[in-house]
Amino acid sequence: MTINEFNLEIDTDKIIKDLRRLIRIPSVSAKSQKLEECAKEVLKIMQEIGIQSELIYFDKDNNTNTVPPLVYGEIKSKSNPNGKTILFYNHYDVQPEEPIDLWDHDPFGGIIKENRIFGRGSSDDKGELITRLNAVEYLLKHTGDIPINVKFLVEGQEEIGSNNISEYIDKYKSKFNTDLVIWEFGYIDQWDHPIISLGMKGLLYVELTAIGPSRDVHSSLAVLIENPAWKLIRALFTLIDNRGKILVEDWYKEIKKLTKDEIVVIENEPFDTESFKKEYGIDKFVNNTNEKYINHLLVNEPTCNIAGLISGYTGEGAKTIIPSRASVKIDFRLVPDMDPMIQFKRLKKHLEKNGFGDIQVTCINGVASGRTDINNMYIKPIQESANSIFGDSMISISSAGTGPMYEFIKLLKAPCISIGGTYIFARIHSPNEYARIDLLEKTTKCIITIINNISKL
Amino acid sequence: MTINEFNLEIDTDKIIKDLRRLIRIPSVSAKSQKLEECAKEVLKIMQEIGIQSELIYFDKDNNTNTVPPLVYGEIKSKSNPNGKTILFYNHYDVQPEEPIDLWDHDPFGGIIKENRIFGRGSSDDKGELITRLNAVEYLLKHTGDIPINVKFLVEGQEEIGSNNISEYIDKYKSKFNTDLVIWEFGYIDQWDHPIISLGMKGLLYVELTAIGPSRDVHSSLAVLIENPAWKLIRALFTLIDNRGKILVEDWYKEIKKLTKDEIVVIENEPFDTESFKKEYGIDKFVNNTNEKYINHLLVNEPTCNIAGLISGYTGEGAKTIIPSRASVKIDFRLVPDMDPMIQFKRLKKHLEKNGFGDIQVTCINGVASGRTDINNMYIKPIQESANSIFGDSMISISSAGTGPMYEFIKLLKAPCISIGGTYIFARIHSPNEYARIDLLEKTTKCIITIINNISKL
Repeated sequence: MTINEFNLEIDTDKIIKDLRRLIRIPSVSAKSQKLEECAKEVLKIMQEIGIQSELIYFDKDNNTNTVPPLVYGEIKSKSNPNGKTILFYNHYDVQPEEPIDLWDHDPFGGIIKENRIFGRGSSDDKGELITRLNAVEYLLKHTGDIPINVKFLVEGQEEIGSNNISEYIDKYKSKFNTDLVIWEFGYIDQWDHPIISLGMKGLLYVELTAIGPSRDVHSSLAVLIENPAWKLIRALFTLIDNRGKILVEDWYKEIKKLTKDEIVVIENEPFDTESFKKEYGIDKFVNNTNEKYINHLLVNEPTCNIAGLISGYTGEGAKTIIPSRASVKIDFRLVPDMDPMIQFKRLKKHLEKNGFGDIQVTCINGVASGRTDINNMYIKPIQESANSIFGDSMISISSAGTGPMYEFIKLLKAPCISIGGTYIFARIHSPNEYARIDLLEKTTKCIITIINNISKL
Repeated sequence: MTINEFNLEIDTDKIIKDLRRLIRIPSVSAKSQKLEECAKEVLKIMQEIGIQSELIYFDKDNNTNTVPPLVYGEIKSKSNPNGKTILFYNHYDVQPEEPIDLWDHDPFGGIIKENRIFGRGSSDDKGELITRLNAVEYLLKHTGDIPINVKFLVEGQEEIGSNNISEYIDKYKSKFNTDLVIWEFGYIDQWDHPIISLGMKGLLYVELTAIGPSRDVHSSLAVLIENPAWKLIRALFTLIDNRGKILVEDWYKEIKKLTKDEIVVIENEPFDTESFKKEYGIDKFVNNTNEKYINHLLVNEPTCNIAGLISGYTGEGAKTIIPSRASVKIDFRLVPDMDPMIQFKRLKKHLEKNGFGDIQVTCINGVASGRTDINNMYIKPIQESANSIFGDSMISISSAGTGPMYEFIKLLKAPCISIGGTYIFARIHSPNEYARIDLLEKTTKCIITIINNISKL
């Protein structure tokens, strides 16, 4: 029994039901919140589908619960057990819901309005995960088999930097062994076409804290006592120039040049500047960037972004104090072949050299940038699958976002390809994140078709 | 019947009881919290003492409750009704208690440990107010009269800039008419001697907000979307140089030179650098200031202090966003004859001129600096009173802090002199604010003696 890929009848209610089960568990990894609970729910969904699955704890022997478990699932093809294997990598953790007051609905409610289901994780990444699971379920239900071997690896720390994925993969290399990794995530552009992405930027996430007096002090003493917020601001000012160029010595040293093939792809990718500006409420780009460089920047430009800043009194009205400390959270996006730990050392050295050696610097996480070769054999069947469902699709050299792709490529020696169903304006990481129900359906169909097409290779 | 000023028997329990009644009302003006309730409690204490008193609402006709009432009290001397009048200016509002987790006790509990009573407002200014009230009570109780006319003016907006005091005074000029204002506050130095202060710095308190995208956005887009935190930092960087000198054009233009008499007083004032550094946990002063300039700075140096800073994600761990806004609260201390509103205009102009015209600038409050002439006739009897109780005292040209002294001097045409009982390390505006019980007693005695000595002029 084979499927008819031109007439896939997806059970939308089931997709929504499964997705809501996960959205309603507020599995915020930054707060170590409800992670194991969510992992168990994913496990349950897998078991209901008929996927052989288990929770893998990071350190069974020590029985420490600090690292949330991996959910691992596996289903062998009965008809083709020695054929190809694909591994779906996803995550069950989500970003914090803050600022809460900007949500129109419960961030963990899964409320539906017309074509949208709202909630933290509805797109990133619980929505994507559900499309993969439902694709497998569809095949099992309609054919009694799956035409290739499928594995699932669903982690709980992606939103805080996947700090332990590398050790997990290293330890279970043979178990996770695969021919291809389908990445956890993929954008659908403003023309409703999927972006098939072959890479991800890296990330170095740090926190800098300047220390002032031993407590908040009456600000009349500002003539005598140094204000840590001013110190932090002076330190930050040394990090980038007014065009955003990072001034840390050797920051750009290891960046690999794009190949001609890559540049062609980058320059062919469309970008709808007007809808982008409208969506984010901006009237110009950083540095008034010329439109033709936008894709280059998204693929290959490192950044130094302030994600959070706090010092002193931030309540209503006036309070006149010298704060006792001032902190900033910075995320640096990295591109091949920048090494996060080398960059971190350069940052520390930079601060010391500029007279800010007394500012505390903490590395919260570091992830290298990963890319799959543009000529990889799996790109074509995936693109053909996408085209058959969405009408068209786009190849992208790299997403502007970050994930642990580098670790998968290095340790599993397998190509990683992103394809998914997250609408480009789905407000991931922001208030009112949503998933489009039509895209959940289409992505499920697309994954079914990919499995089918790869089985024919 | 006259009092024996060398043998004043103060009722400490009564002072503590009254002070606790006020500490336990969390009258935080920055939050418009429990202000009328506290005003009514002050009124009650006055009435119990036998002071003729009332609440004066800002705008009876409109019956708006946005401005907390003044508590006004008055008691005429029976034996000397045409003699001098002194007016005690105090306030019943307090600074916010945040950060709450740094308090060892309930900030509004009034817990006593040995010689200290802890709580927000225990020193600033509920403690000071209670010493004045108990001084008057003592005289009434022990002599059946008061030797001069006494007035009380207790406001509820001092900690947020006394925005309405000027209009209040202007409206009730004749009611508040006085020969002398005893200021709400006075420090006791580390040698347990009061500092008699003749002036206060002014204040311009502003909030600057840089606006970014219409919501917090995934930081992978930092290559395209401007980060408002970076914009704010670049704007702040233009405000001061690395020595704290304010770079806004004409900022220092109207500053009045100190007279020779003033300089002599400034240079004779002692300053205990070691206990100061220990108290605040610092190992050096701003710019490694030479000790001999410290008093000059405290009296006559304008500042630009960051009191609060916030943007983006400030919770645990990592969140990768471009914040939608970034805000800073700045207090600028002013000296004679800087005009807060002129300085505010200069600040706005500076930001525009430097390319930050799109940063929102709000004036939260502005207070001019006020000073009483060093040769004023009331200084001597006040200093003699202080010396008789504390053994010694110090004259200061100006406190480093701010209060609406300028408005009193201008509208009531009366000198304003600060004398009080707040230990210099009493942690006002900080966690674990306390009042020393011995100083509450001594200050009460000192106020009794001042009233007595002025009656002999």
